Amino acid sequence: MKNTFGSTLSVTLFGESHGDYIGATLDGLAPGIRIDREFIASELKKRRPSGKISTGRIEADEYTIVSGVYGEYTTGTPLTVLIPNTNKRSADYEANARIPRPSHADYTAECKYHGFSDPRGGGHFSGRLTAPLVLVGAIVRRALMDKGIFIGTHIKSLHGEEDRELGDIRADIEYLNATEYPVLDPMAKEKMIALTEECRERRDSIGGVLETYAIGIPEGVGEPWFDTIEGCLAHAMFSIPAIKGVEFGCGFGLSNLYGSEANDQLEYRDGRVVTKTNNSGGINGGITNGMPIVMRCAVKPTPSIFKEQDSVDLDKGENVTLSISGRHDPSIIHRARAVVDAMTALTLADLLCVRYGTDYLR
Amino acid sequence: MKNTFGSTLSVTLFGESHGDYIGATLDGLAPGIRIDREFIASELKKRRPSGKISTGRIEADEYTIVSGVYGEYTTGTPLTVLIPNTNKRSADYEANARIPRPSHADYTAECKYHGFSDPRGGGHFSGRLTAPLVLVGAIVRRALMDKGIFIGTHIKSLHGEEDRELGDIRADIEYLNATEYPVLDPMAKEKMIALTEECRERRDSIGGVLETYAIGIPEGVGEPWFDTIEGCLAHAMFSIPAIKGVEFGCGFGLSNLYGSEANDQLEYRDGRVVTKTNNSGGINGGITNGMPIVMRCAVKPTPSIFKEQDSVDLDKGENVTLSISGRHDPSIIHRARAVVDAMTALTLADLLCVRYGTDYLR
Amino acid sequence: MKNTFGSTLSVTLFGESHGDYIGATLDGLAPGIRIDREFIASELKKRRPSGKISTGRIEADEYTIVSGVYGEYTTGTPLTVLIPNTNKRSADYEANARIPRPSHADYTAECKYHGFSDPRGGGHFSGRLTAPLVLVGAIVRRALMDKGIFIGTHIKSLHGEEDRELGDIRADIEYLNATEYPVLDPMAKEKMIALTEECRERRDSIGGVLETYAIGIPEGVGEPWFDTIEGCLAHAMFSIPAIKGVEFGCGFGLSNLYGSEANDQLEYRDGRVVTKTNNSGGINGGITNGMPIVMRCAVKPTPSIFKEQDSVDLDKGENVTLSISGRHDPSIIHRARAVVDAMTALTLADLLCVRYGTDYLR
Amino acid sequence: MKNTFGSTLSVTLFGESHGDYIGATLDGLAPGIRIDREFIASELKKRRPSGKISTGRIEADEYTIVSGVYGEYTTGTPLTVLIPNTNKRSADYEANARIPRPSHADYTAECKYHGFSDPRGGGHFSGRLTAPLVLVGAIVRRALMDKGIFIGTHIKSLHGEEDRELGDIRADIEYLNATEYPVLDPMAKEKMIALTEECRERRDSIGGVLETYAIGIPEGVGEPWFDTIEGCLAHAMFSIPAIKGVEFGCGFGLSNLYGSEANDQLEYRDGRVVTKTNNSGGINGGITNGMPIVMRCAVKPTPSIFKEQDSVDLDKGENVTLSISGRHDPSIIHRARAVVDAMTALTLADLLCVRYGTDYLR
Repeated sequence: MKNTFGSTLSVTLFGESHGDYIGATLDGLAPGIRIDREFIASELKKRRPSGKISTGRIEADEYTIVSGVYGEYTTGTPLTVLIPNTNKRSADYEANARIPRPSHADYTAECKYHGFSDPRGGGHFSGRLTAPLVLVGAIVRRALMDKGIFIGTHIKSLHGEEDRELGDIRADIEYLNATEYPVLDPMAKEKMIALTEECRERRDSIGGVLETYAIGIPEGVGEPWFDTIEGCLAHAMFSIPAIKGVEFGCGFGLSNLYGSEANDQLEYRDGRVVTKTNNSGGINGGITNGMPIVMRCAVKPTPSIFKEQDSVDLDKGENVTLSISGRHDPSIIHRARAVVDAMTALTLADLLCVRYGTDYLR
Repeated sequence: MKNTFGSTLSVTLFGESHGDYIGATLDGLAPGIRIDREFIASELKKRRPSGKISTGRIEADEYTIVSGVYGEYTTGTPLTVLIPNTNKRSADYEANARIPRPSHADYTAECKYHGFSDPRGGGHFSGRLTAPLVLVGAIVRRALMDKGIFIGTHIKSLHGEEDRELGDIRADIEYLNATEYPVLDPMAKEKMIALTEECRERRDSIGGVLETYAIGIPEGVGEPWFDTIEGCLAHAMFSIPAIKGVEFGCGFGLSNLYGSEANDQLEYRDGRVVTKTNNSGGINGGITNGMPIVMRCAVKPTPSIFKEQDSVDLDKGENVTLSISGRHDPSIIHRARAVVDAMTALTLADLLCVRYGTDYLR
Repeated sequence: MKNTFGSTLSVTLFGESHGDYIGATLDGLAPGIRIDREFIASELKKRRPSGKISTGRIEADEYTIVSGVYGEYTTGTPLTVLIPNTNKRSADYEANARIPRPSHADYTAECKYHGFSDPRGGGHFSGRLTAPLVLVGAIVRRALMDKGIFIGTHIKSLHGEEDRELGDIRADIEYLNATEYPVLDPMAKEKMIALTEECRERRDSIGGVLETYAIGIPEGVGEPWFDTIEGCLAHAMFSIPAIKGVEFGCGFGLSNLYGSEANDQLEYRDGRVVTKTNNSGGINGGITNGMPIVMRCAVKPTPSIFKEQDSVDLDKGENVTLSISGRHDPSIIHRARAVVDAMTALTLADLLCVRYGTDYLR
Repeated sequence: MKNTFGSTLSVTLFGESHGDYIGATLDGLAPGIRIDREFIASELKKRRPSGKISTGRIEADEYTIVSGVYGEYTTGTPLTVLIPNTNKRSADYEANARIPRPSHADYTAECKYHGFSDPRGGGHFSGRLTAPLVLVGAIVRRALMDKGIFIGTHIKSLHGEEDRELGDIRADIEYLNATEYPVLDPMAKEKMIALTEECRERRDSIGGVLETYAIGIPEGVGEPWFDTIEGCLAHAMFSIPAIKGVEFGCGFGLSNLYGSEANDQLEYRDGRVVTKTNNSGGINGGITNGMPIVMRCAVKPTPSIFKEQDSVDLDKGENVTLSISGRHDPSIIHRARAVVDAMTALTLADLLCVRYGTDYLR
């Protein structure tokens, strides 16, 4: 029930999938930041289901900022956003309220909340709660851009289908942020979309890997031993439903390298210390070294599938089979990237504010 | 500089490699826990370098508990441990104080601390600081054992060489905890040790993957959205130097599965709800489901290698080559597992105490 | 900008006096607590201005619980309340936006937020933000009552006019909670109300002292050294606008006693350890001793008065005189008691949850 | 058991009166601060018992800084201090271990720690633990002085005997910091010392009020709603044993004033906004307004008195009488002021670092 994350700049999340509103409060944000409604809308759009490859639930994502903004500038006081839940089909869920869906939070929520949690649409554990995170993340991310800090994510792989590596990082980030389905290689993109559609026909789901770059962060940011860049980012990422792995730089790949291959040797370039390679993903000892931060997140296949599955009836205490109805995505990876971008922005901004103070984002 | 981790049960870490003492304070520990000096000694021994495959620096790891214990039982007040630094060869380090070692924290510490950090032996960023973590972790881990909670870690792979899967988890954990080089398959163990020795001759280093199991944790533990089991464990793991990736259950492997393969279907077994597979690693929605927690950590090759490397001289502002002398491990993975076990214990115990209160570990 | 308070059970506050909504999020509340709308309404009513002795702004305090409640029981997930701001006369305030009102937060908010804070009605610093605190406090307080824990506050003195001491504490608490103007002695009550009315005619304001009792808290609660009962309660109290002093037990009166007078000697009574006196206010070493907790808060006279005052014009950089218009209370002490009760409940409940776990309030 | 206080700059406290060491860890301190051993010694001396008016236990207060300092400058990493306990007479205490001393923490510690706490000399609750707080506080306070921020405390009253008001605040602070018994008026000082000696003869104890001034803090510091200057300072003060009341500005005195008397009217003086009076104690809305911060703490009479008192024998379950032996102060107010100064420095420095970042104190 720890729904607040961050130290100097923190976010508090609340809501249930079928309640009146979901929302979030951003506390510690500097005053004087202009609210860029267009940027917010474009970020929300990336997270929102749409088109053939997403769930049938169309969410308008109308939102209100009910505090912390005056005359389209942040006031410096807590900024709370509300998103109404309008397109609800609770009946889809209430029928099976006592039969936990495999690999969802239904059973664990039952254990933790003793049967009192809201069963409709996953309740508090619905992926829908990522919408307010994307919203407040967009506000922070926009402010980071004004400080020269840019964040971008692509689908590195989808069910084995791989995108190309980033080349010109700044340009590629810009491209990714402007596109709905964030893949750099057009051929790979086509194949991934085809894979997803095929998967929908199979009534199944697929997952993949998101790769995130953050550039422009000054050297020396991060609060080891415990509030390292990696530790805080991973903490944030694992809050996102469906993420089951996080790695930085070469990550698990480092386990197959020799030290002489893995080490990032240093040199002066244009009067600045840089590393010749970036196997460390821009972080040493938990602190930024000025190189791009590189993070990869494993996104599991959506657990809501239409195939019949085994489960239990908690009321009757017996084994049953379950067929999930409702509206679901065969893959949420392209939508998850908006959440990853948002949580990356919130986490890095917090560590920047710890280091440089509450006015840093002005 | 956030050197405190945990909410209800927290650990604070301090010290430098060549200072008088390194140490840690454990706060929020229940009163009445017996201090098991033998268990502590065995854990410290696992972390301590020794034999052919480790650094030449032999550390005695004598320690004192200077507070929080009276008559060999915890008092419930902060428990502080001190470990003196006795075997120091500062001259090894001071010569190259201004030439950062590649993929170490030298350069980032320089940026963050403006040249004031202790350069001797990595200072505050030395792997040596994991010794007090192992020490306080052992106290907590011992108390968890009395609650039926067991944690064990094996080297899943070293530079590509693989150990077998766990079978009887409880028995395998017991075996691993009793052995210095934690590999289940004797043939794999032999090969890994041979790999390490060969690597020493190459004056290079290698890394691998540690896999951790925790069993006996009740269902319903974890504080989503943000203080999930995964998020808190990953946060803790990334504090350990050399760890660059963390995954749970099938982790990155999930990105290649269909939902119908990845989902853990449920059933009643002996009157208890269990999952037929454990691809989720015992965690759904950030909350324990009663199945074993399974976590894997990528351990990079030790950055201290004897091969000549490129670096920069920060005083002269020019490119130089660097040859690291001193005493170093060709691989620290077997030692790192003691730290992983300790941080896993500290993190899970904290989340258990948040849920069940400060007296939980009694 | 730290708008979250509490460790295991926390409250996050947001909103501005003239924004769309003010609200609060309660996180860490146990599942299964029934929402008692009647009790909430009665608490909100105590805080709400009404009648001759209060401000002319009549607030309806309609509220919505938008998350964390399902079927009138708490779910265990974050509970967010919203109160719409309906009766706004922003023009009253905007005229003098750049002329700080003496002893208000106008000038300090200007300094902190660089002129970006919402000037209407005190913005984020308006006493109106105490309404959501009273609301979530009432939910927690109601749950505490089911655990046998009762909190009550009387006006110990108003501008020198004194109420009688509490006698039968449980009965007096009950009386106080059932009455709008919380004074035990009917004569004193009459005089205080007369004082307030007279003060309104003088176009001035008065303050006083609130005295709070909490009974039924088990022994052994509190987390010293730093999270003492006194420290946490005082931290919470000083968040309430107008409170400038907090004391426990005999408080400042102890400074005139001998130790032999001040010490609370112990004895067994009905098989339980009690103290013969309660000069310590139920707390020793920051931990509850089972006796009633006794706290007093100094409430300053409302800073909004109608007399002409000296101030500065921040835009023109010159001295000016200021006449405050708008609607104001000659004394807010009787309304402040609802906030004191709420914050006392939130603070004690948090320390109880730290000790006994997240399910304690069920 | 929350022994860590502070957000960006935090202190962790540990130890027992008769253990090997007591100590504290300061985390988040900027690098490059020179350690002023003379200043530290002078602060420790003020806290240390000495002379006729203090306890017979003479403490050397030798200390070691075991981490976070290199070449007499802070490194920016956690700074841990250790003070050995040398002059211990445990037998004085162990005899009566199960008979709680009135108004001490003996009984509440028994309840909280289930009989496992260290009974010798008050264990973890001994006033002796304030020594490391004074030590780390002195380091921070010294750094604040370099930023133009000065803190000083006088005994405003002792058992009714009053000191004069501060006049030239900067000069008076300087005088107070240079003197062992911090009273401005020489006549009052003489009387207070006489009162204390007389009290020793009566085998009793007395208390008083400490008044603290802090000047030079910039406007706009403080993190309302909850992390107000008042809330954080009071939180810190109530950690100090013997303090039972805290007020700011006119504090409880405000309850007898009219708003027109209490309000601090504003004006420009030398181009700066100031208030004509300082009844608010330099704080409005929980944020500094640039005027001196004024705080008063009620110090209760030392609970250790030599008069026979009633108590209970927790083992036998019966009422007994208790005569405390050992070494005790008839008044600790002059020693407590060093702790008040230290905790004030730590709290203000933390709020300054939250606002201005981790490098602020450099």
